[in-house]
Amino acid sequence: MPATHHTASTPAADVLICEVGPRDGLQNIARCMPTAAKQAWIDALHGAGLREIEVGSFVPPALLPQMADCAEIVRHARSRPGLTVVALVPNLRGAEAALAAGVHKLTLPVSASTAHSLANVRKTPAQMLAELRSIAALRAERAPQVGIEVGLSTAFGCTLQGAVDEDEVVRLAELAVQAGADEVGLSDTTGMADPERVRRLFLRLRAAIGKHAGAAHLHNTRGLGLANCLAAWDAGVRTFDSSQGGLGGCPFAPGASGNVVTEDLVFMFESMGVATGVDLHGLAAARSALLAGLPGEAVYGMTVDAGLPPHFVYADGRRPPAHTLAGAGR
Amino acid sequence: MPATHHTASTPAADVLICEVGPRDGLQNIARCMPTAAKQAWIDALHGAGLREIEVGSFVPPALLPQMADCAEIVRHARSRPGLTVVALVPNLRGAEAALAAGVHKLTLPVSASTAHSLANVRKTPAQMLAELRSIAALRAERAPQVGIEVGLSTAFGCTLQGAVDEDEVVRLAELAVQAGADEVGLSDTTGMADPERVRRLFLRLRAAIGKHAGAAHLHNTRGLGLANCLAAWDAGVRTFDSSQGGLGGCPFAPGASGNVVTEDLVFMFESMGVATGVDLHGLAAARSALLAGLPGEAVYGMTVDAGLPPHFVYADGRRPPAHTLAGAGR
Repeated sequence: MPATHHTASTPAADVLICEVGPRDGLQNIARCMPTAAKQAWIDALHGAGLREIEVGSFVPPALLPQMADCAEIVRHARSRPGLTVVALVPNLRGAEAALAAGVHKLTLPVSASTAHSLANVRKTPAQMLAELRSIAALRAERAPQVGIEVGLSTAFGCTLQGAVDEDEVVRLAELAVQAGADEVGLSDTTGMADPERVRRLFLRLRAAIGKHAGAAHLHNTRGLGLANCLAAWDAGVRTFDSSQGGLGGCPFAPGASGNVVTEDLVFMFESMGVATGVDLHGLAAARSALLAGLPGEAVYGMTVDAGLPPHFVYADGRRPPAHTLAGAGR
Repeated sequence: MPATHHTASTPAADVLICEVGPRDGLQNIARCMPTAAKQAWIDALHGAGLREIEVGSFVPPALLPQMADCAEIVRHARSRPGLTVVALVPNLRGAEAALAAGVHKLTLPVSASTAHSLANVRKTPAQMLAELRSIAALRAERAPQVGIEVGLSTAFGCTLQGAVDEDEVVRLAELAVQAGADEVGLSDTTGMADPERVRRLFLRLRAAIGKHAGAAHLHNTRGLGLANCLAAWDAGVRTFDSSQGGLGGCPFAPGASGNVVTEDLVFMFESMGVATGVDLHGLAAARSALLAGLPGEAVYGMTVDAGLPPHFVYADGRRPPAHTLAGAGR
């Protein structure tokens, strides 16, 4: 089952925002953030009200030296009250390490595109489902309280193979649940999603696997990130992945961030009256912590650039201490 | 009635995108684009498939020297086949000049915030409605085929007075129709709209004034521009104002553009299967024309930065000539 044992202290929120910057952001940046800086950043993110953070991935350090301290980061993050600590694992070996470190939830990427799957993890989607079955067996044996999430990569299209068949995405989601996944989310790995497709595919996902339908992991490659999140919200999605400052994956020009920017996503939902439990000035402080660990790194977010509207009120009625998001860095 | 006499050659489109860069963009830039460059830019925008362009505003040249050549621009734009030539007028005097120049449609800003109205046009909203009645009488006498549009500014909030009462917005829309407006649109002048409010207010607008409900003029101040356009689309809006390169109004940092970016809006709709009639490589050529007239001007747009997805297909089945939007400038 998804990890719910530690959510008692979570403030009431209409939507769960899972911060993926420490994993998805940092693994796309060549230099390594020092361990202490990662811990300070995660503490600040938690301090801003985030209650689910993907803190790293358990991959061989030779492949991703940025993630070499993942076990230490997991152990530290577990000390934050009410925080669901998530780590990505590409295979059974990674899952063993993640369980040993004490994660609350594992997330395994399964690509809907065979071409992408082979390029990314050197396995076919069917082989990844076999890996998932092994991981679920391990979980049942060693840590039955730990959640297993599958993120279906390239669910909205693949730059390598082109269109991705929606029936195939839904079929993979069903197979993933049968193989032991508690939640299956959809990822727009290549920034090719549009609001219609997002709405349609998440509705199909929910129709197929019901309560197992998981997070929307959407990118902002061509500026559609928030519109796609809105479409997912309309389709009933209540968990969203995003990255502070749009960190990581800026393959193009300034502004063309990879992940949806956490600050802008929080601003959109709160403006709509949808409580996130996240505080924007707290996120500004976390941004400072991030930049302290990666001086000069390019971060994005139009809400931070523009500041809050002068009469902004959070969904729960709180008023921010100031219009500006001072100290937020850029 | 709205100008429809010259739409016979307009290609089939599900949505009308009104390009406001030559007015809303240029009036927010200190330097003046030369008249010939404006004409070349408008020709290129028309060449890209845009069929409604707000080409300028009829205001005293002492106030806005950038718009001093508006009559000449209108006369030139009228030569483009199938193009609806729109100009902003702040008052009766401007309307006289616009009709003399031969516009197809006038647009008059009426602010829903008294504070903003006084600051912007030194008149209360009630005084602007009186101006509208005079303009409608003039139109009936001199050019009954010309359309009159009212854009309700600060419809989603005002930085000066704070919250704007939605009942007041709807009441002003009804009064504007009674005073002679053919269409009444809603403008997020201050970048304070959110998708819920956009959806709610456009639904209320349509319920109140039916077929007179007009365009969505939305800003991208905090990154919500496209999400707000999606919300307006969901509420039945089929006319959208946007600005090439997000031109004009960049009061904050890079990326924090004012208007919704035409290129990104077109990409979003076409991706959704909603035909705009606009060609993205044509828009790239128009961007070059814009930058030829304003060398070095900052322009935005993530679709241009990222290029099209490799397997992109337009809503009508056309395939673009290339993945990149080369020559688009930045």
